[in-house]
Amino acid sequence: MEKLTVVKVGGKIVEEKDSLQAFLHHFAAIKGYKVLVHGGGRSATALATKLGIESVMVKGRRITDSETLNVVIMVYGGLVNKTIVAQLQSLGINALGLTGADLNYMQSEKRPVEEIDYGFVGDVKVVDGNILADLIAKDIVPVLAPLTHDKKGNLLNTNADTIAGETAKALAHFFEVTLIYCFEKKGVLQKEHDENSVISEINRPQFDRYVSEGVIQGGMIPKLENAFDAIAAGVKQVIITKDNAIDKQAGTKII
Amino acid sequence: MEKLTVVKVGGKIVEEKDSLQAFLHHFAAIKGYKVLVHGGGRSATALATKLGIESVMVKGRRITDSETLNVVIMVYGGLVNKTIVAQLQSLGINALGLTGADLNYMQSEKRPVEEIDYGFVGDVKVVDGNILADLIAKDIVPVLAPLTHDKKGNLLNTNADTIAGETAKALAHFFEVTLIYCFEKKGVLQKEHDENSVISEINRPQFDRYVSEGVIQGGMIPKLENAFDAIAAGVKQVIITKDNAIDKQAGTKII
Repeated sequence: MEKLTVVKVGGKIVEEKDSLQAFLHHFAAIKGYKVLVHGGGRSATALATKLGIESVMVKGRRITDSETLNVVIMVYGGLVNKTIVAQLQSLGINALGLTGADLNYMQSEKRPVEEIDYGFVGDVKVVDGNILADLIAKDIVPVLAPLTHDKKGNLLNTNADTIAGETAKALAHFFEVTLIYCFEKKGVLQKEHDENSVISEINRPQFDRYVSEGVIQGGMIPKLENAFDAIAAGVKQVIITKDNAIDKQAGTKII
Repeated sequence: MEKLTVVKVGGKIVEEKDSLQAFLHHFAAIKGYKVLVHGGGRSATALATKLGIESVMVKGRRITDSETLNVVIMVYGGLVNKTIVAQLQSLGINALGLTGADLNYMQSEKRPVEEIDYGFVGDVKVVDGNILADLIAKDIVPVLAPLTHDKKGNLLNTNADTIAGETAKALAHFFEVTLIYCFEKKGVLQKEHDENSVISEINRPQFDRYVSEGVIQGGMIPKLENAFDAIAAGVKQVIITKDNAIDKQAGTKII
């Protein structure tokens, strides 16, 4: 099978002109087939604020009422996605920006209301790996916005990490997939604040031990759980690393 | 050659929920291959106003400074485009939203500054009919936003009538193309205000006579000039009609 790299990037990197440009040069330098998944939360919050719409986050997720949905459609599907596509084209990468509604590549269901009503937020149900694989085989680079749809006419806000994970899993039937999560540090650290203590490789038993010892904690636990989930579903490796190291595959490898 | 219909729709129709839904039902009912080109100017003006950005129009064209460019990228490339795509998917149409940057299907050049500086406005230079034809042959329906790019990393605001005309011309090498411009009236009228006086067919000599007699005037003249230009470039016919008649091919036929 041919190699494919799925890169997820979010945060400040994609929302500031200089850091985005630097990142896209690294992305363009990745050899072989590739897919880019982006966030854009800070820009969405900034636009919402300008429009007098309050941004409410619960457990790191945006409560998405209908006004907020329009904001994220504009920012994720429009501003961030098309800016990235145009810049990749200038680097000779044949990019194609997609939401889950485009080509119906990713369907979701509105999250059921339990303790919290997240509003127009989608939980992924069906990913059409075939249609993405067809595009990729033609040297097209899909650029995926964190939006899906319910096939009933509604777009739904969807976590970019989830989009990346689900896309990597669906494409594992067609390619040897490496999934890279860009991170603000060089990788998973053995000692907090010590950038030289990057754990270079980690498997499930090691992960469990690090968690029980308190070396890995907080938000890194669900991130790594997702990574092991992707591996179990056929993704070759998951890498957590800094944005400027994506073309070198440094950082922490989850195997 | 197989038949293809390119429909251009703009104005209030695409920007109000009920009229958009009604229009998309008519669009979905068009038999055979199809492409949809949309505007979104009213929504762009509304968002700009909310953000405190003044909308300046000269000869019906928006002066596009960098702030206004971000607004039209969000509204045309995001809100309007993705809303249409999601709704078409719910009608069983495999829609794919595109700006000129996506797949590099339409390149333009920033309009040179002469008497007027239009800002980030693009004049179309290259249309990749091949890539659109490939998609269309797979029963994918391209939904084209009025945005192009310069292949140097910049998106440019581009008139939707022009996008429709250039797309129709590029696809005339692959399909027997009908180009439909949606209009607020039933077609070109012989008597102003008399909706029963629709001119059913018009060729170049008749057009010249109507213009010299003052029957056709104002904004309809450049619209029809564009139509004859498309015909000269191989488009089979151009129809100007009301949005609720696009699947019946009523209205005025330019042949």
